[in-house]
Amino acid sequence: HRQVAEEFAVLAEIGKNNVVAGVNYTFGTKEAQPEEDPSVAARLQRLQNDYETSGMRRTVEGVLVVHEHNHPHVLMLQIANSFFKLPGDYLRPGEDEIEGLKARLDERLAPVDKDKASSNDHNSDWEIGECLAVWWRPNFETFMYPYIPAHVTKPKEQKKIFLVNLPEKKVLSVPKNMKLLAVPLFELYDNAQRYGPQLSAIPHLLSRFNFIYEK
Amino acid sequence: HRQVAEEFAVLAEIGKNNVVAGVNYTFGTKEAQPEEDPSVAARLQRLQNDYETSGMRRTVEGVLVVHEHNHPHVLMLQIANSFFKLPGDYLRPGEDEIEGLKARLDERLAPVDKDKASSNDHNSDWEIGECLAVWWRPNFETFMYPYIPAHVTKPKEQKKIFLVNLPEKKVLSVPKNMKLLAVPLFELYDNAQRYGPQLSAIPHLLSRFNFIYEK
Ligand SMILES: [Zn+2]
Ligand SMILES: [Zn+2]
Ligand SMILES: [Zn+2]
Ligand SMILES: [Zn+2]
Repeated sequence: HRQVAEEFAVLAEIGKNNVVAGVNYTFGTKEAQPEEDPSVAARLQRLQNDYETSGMRRTVEGVLVVHEHNHPHVLMLQIANSFFKLPGDYLRPGEDEIEGLKARLDERLAPVDKDKASSNDHNSDWEIGECLAVWWRPNFETFMYPYIPAHVTKPKEQKKIFLVNLPEKKVLSVPKNMKLLAVPLFELYDNAQRYGPQLSAIPHLLSRFNFIYEK
Repeated sequence: HRQVAEEFAVLAEIGKNNVVAGVNYTFGTKEAQPEEDPSVAARLQRLQNDYETSGMRRTVEGVLVVHEHNHPHVLMLQIANSFFKLPGDYLRPGEDEIEGLKARLDERLAPVDKDKASSNDHNSDWEIGECLAVWWRPNFETFMYPYIPAHVTKPKEQKKIFLVNLPEKKVLSVPKNMKLLAVPLFELYDNAQRYGPQLSAIPHLLSRFNFIYEK
């Protein structure tokens, strides 16, 4: 039986306090990971620059599901007490999406292990499951859609969202400038106003899965 | 290359006019199929009566996807010029969900074949694909959710939505009191106000599929 903190606000506190008594997940902190771009405009400009050299950006993100009292919660990062995001990031040109997602999850959530020269040893811990959704950015703008809009032949970004199956026990380490939240599905559902169109759709995307709860 | 009418309003007209020139789908009409219950209250009351004798209602519906100028459209029924629904209906106790969905699709959309004694011959035409979503009704009320709400142990209805792969050619026959519409994904997306939470989520549910377009 997997346990996390009862509600997502509490898990944020747990992340800061560095320990969870009696449960199977342990949360630590590590160095802050500041945003790569200082503003949305700068991010879109870099997207455009990268597009001109390497073509369409490919982004991968993971939906990490944890369970408590028989209902699923999704792990999310909150940055600077404001916006929410799934762990993940864009890939380098030619990088494999599954291996790339494992590397991004490690970078964001794996503990820093000073005894190991490379982070590759962690990768086997992440079990990347099915693709849940694909989002497309038709222009160098903030809007994305869960389809390629009609007559768009050269989308500028493709974002794939994968289910990530968590093991029974896991040590996660959260960058100091972020909080890790376990958000229940009922909080996300029909709540695009707070979580945006991508995160609020996660309950729909997970509904076809039969989550097995150990007694 | 599959073709349907350009926009969904047009397909409704095609349905009435009984013929589509030069395309691979043919639309006919058949006897009206009035709603089983005269009101929402009556429908919920029958749900409750059925629950007391047979337990949780199981409903199955199909997402039939057709393509035009490289974007997918979903076939929907419109009843009495007002609400929209996917083809499908509830199952009898013990009825297999795949065979049951095929039978409901036949009943709603297959032509009436006077030369055949049973409708079983049509069944092989429907290729039922993956489950896209599961919705739950926790109480004898109109609200449904894409998850079982916390602490609900006896949901009153489960609705499974399946992808249905259409063949290259197909003859469909629409009850006279309904219209068959091909609604493009961009019309459904972010449009719960018009289509409700279930239908407006279909673009999310289909986003993981790579629709292959024949040239
Ligand atoms: Zn909870
Ligand atoms: Zn429990
Ligand atoms: Zn169209
Ligand atoms: Zn075409």
